[in-house]
Amino acid sequence: MLKFYYHPLSPIARRVWLALLEKAITFEPVLVDLKNRENLKPDYLALNPFHHVPVLIDGDLQILESFAILDYLEAKFPTPALSLTSPAAIARMKMVQLVIANELMPQLPGLVFANADAATSEADRTIPRQLETVLTFLSVQLGTDEYFGGDRLSLADVTAGAALPLMTRLGVSLQAHPSLAAWCDRLTQRAAWQQTDPDAASLAAWQRWITLMVQRKKRQMAKA
Amino acid sequence: MLKFYYHPLSPIARRVWLALLEKAITFEPVLVDLKNRENLKPDYLALNPFHHVPVLIDGDLQILESFAILDYLEAKFPTPALSLTSPAAIARMKMVQLVIANELMPQLPGLVFANADAATSEADRTIPRQLETVLTFLSVQLGTDEYFGGDRLSLADVTAGAALPLMTRLGVSLQAHPSLAAWCDRLTQRAAWQQTDPDAASLAAWQRWITLMVQRKKRQMAKA
Repeated sequence: MLKFYYHPLSPIARRVWLALLEKAITFEPVLVDLKNRENLKPDYLALNPFHHVPVLIDGDLQILESFAILDYLEAKFPTPALSLTSPAAIARMKMVQLVIANELMPQLPGLVFANADAATSEADRTIPRQLETVLTFLSVQLGTDEYFGGDRLSLADVTAGAALPLMTRLGVSLQAHPSLAAWCDRLTQRAAWQQTDPDAASLAAWQRWITLMVQRKKRQMAKA
Repeated sequence: MLKFYYHPLSPIARRVWLALLEKAITFEPVLVDLKNRENLKPDYLALNPFHHVPVLIDGDLQILESFAILDYLEAKFPTPALSLTSPAAIARMKMVQLVIANELMPQLPGLVFANADAATSEADRTIPRQLETVLTFLSVQLGTDEYFGGDRLSLADVTAGAALPLMTRLGVSLQAHPSLAAWCDRLTQRAAWQQTDPDAASLAAWQRWITLMVQRKKRQMAKA
């Protein structure tokens, strides 16, 4: 059986978790205790020398990097499909996935921190503008469609859907982007989303932990 | 005709450049003058609101993110193929691509800077260990094969091959990884690599520019 190493609050692991559930693949979940640095212990480093979640084990095959795992699952378990077939649809799906990873996700720690810290510095106040650029890009990509790939769920929705609904819970408003807000509502009603959505207490604990990490990093940078 | 917005020294744009040449696709190259911040001007921001290279334009379709462009090119121009077909081969190819992007590339500015700066700080001296983790991972993935996908060139080689040979020119030694060193030699003899390899003067100018960027960022962080 597939072994899925994850953490329930990781939006990166959640991409894979959502895909496994949407595709109704049987798997054994293994929670990696990031707070107690289980990901830095030799057993886990043997699975992923870069110490991130998620990792997927399928027999002899060890797969790290969520997007590699998603493409693997599509190739190995093609139905129900979360991939698209026309070259243009593939381009748009991958673009959305990569913009989420490279432009939206790096803003997440800052968002959590700005949310927690009353004395938000000048640097932190630039976050909303960068975020707005991503939201506008995503709105254009979504257009008036139900999902990023048109009328059915794809890897773009799974990837964006592991990040954006979480961000709305951290205070990001989608009011200026009604189609994105409707897309968010549509996703969060799905069983896979409801099953993987963190409860309020877990989310609050995670926010406190991320805040501590950001503070530690700021102190390290100040010293460097 | 395809329009390819790039900069000759960008290892991210070079992934696409190499793929276009290896697949013998006709395209019009458009050099984006990053040094004079042409990428921040409205015309370019209309192509890519996140102001990076590369961008590929195919008729009405604007594609940003190098990995999205590579997957698009595979879908639209399937032969000669740079993609692989078995689920396990796809997983390994994507893993290599994403490890290059997420674990190797972030080390590049620090490498250039450490190379230029005699008074390398304690923080910079940790770079070789992180780099060693990536090189060991890549050696294991390559094994005794000719290419990352086995006996033929794939997107993994194009992605790793736009980064690693450059790093050896910046002083990174592959002596401890003879199979990677041989792979590097094999790639750099290919016409596509020779055609896209920067000359010594361009590389030196780019190193000076990256060094200035890193110094500016360090000053900004010290102030934050």
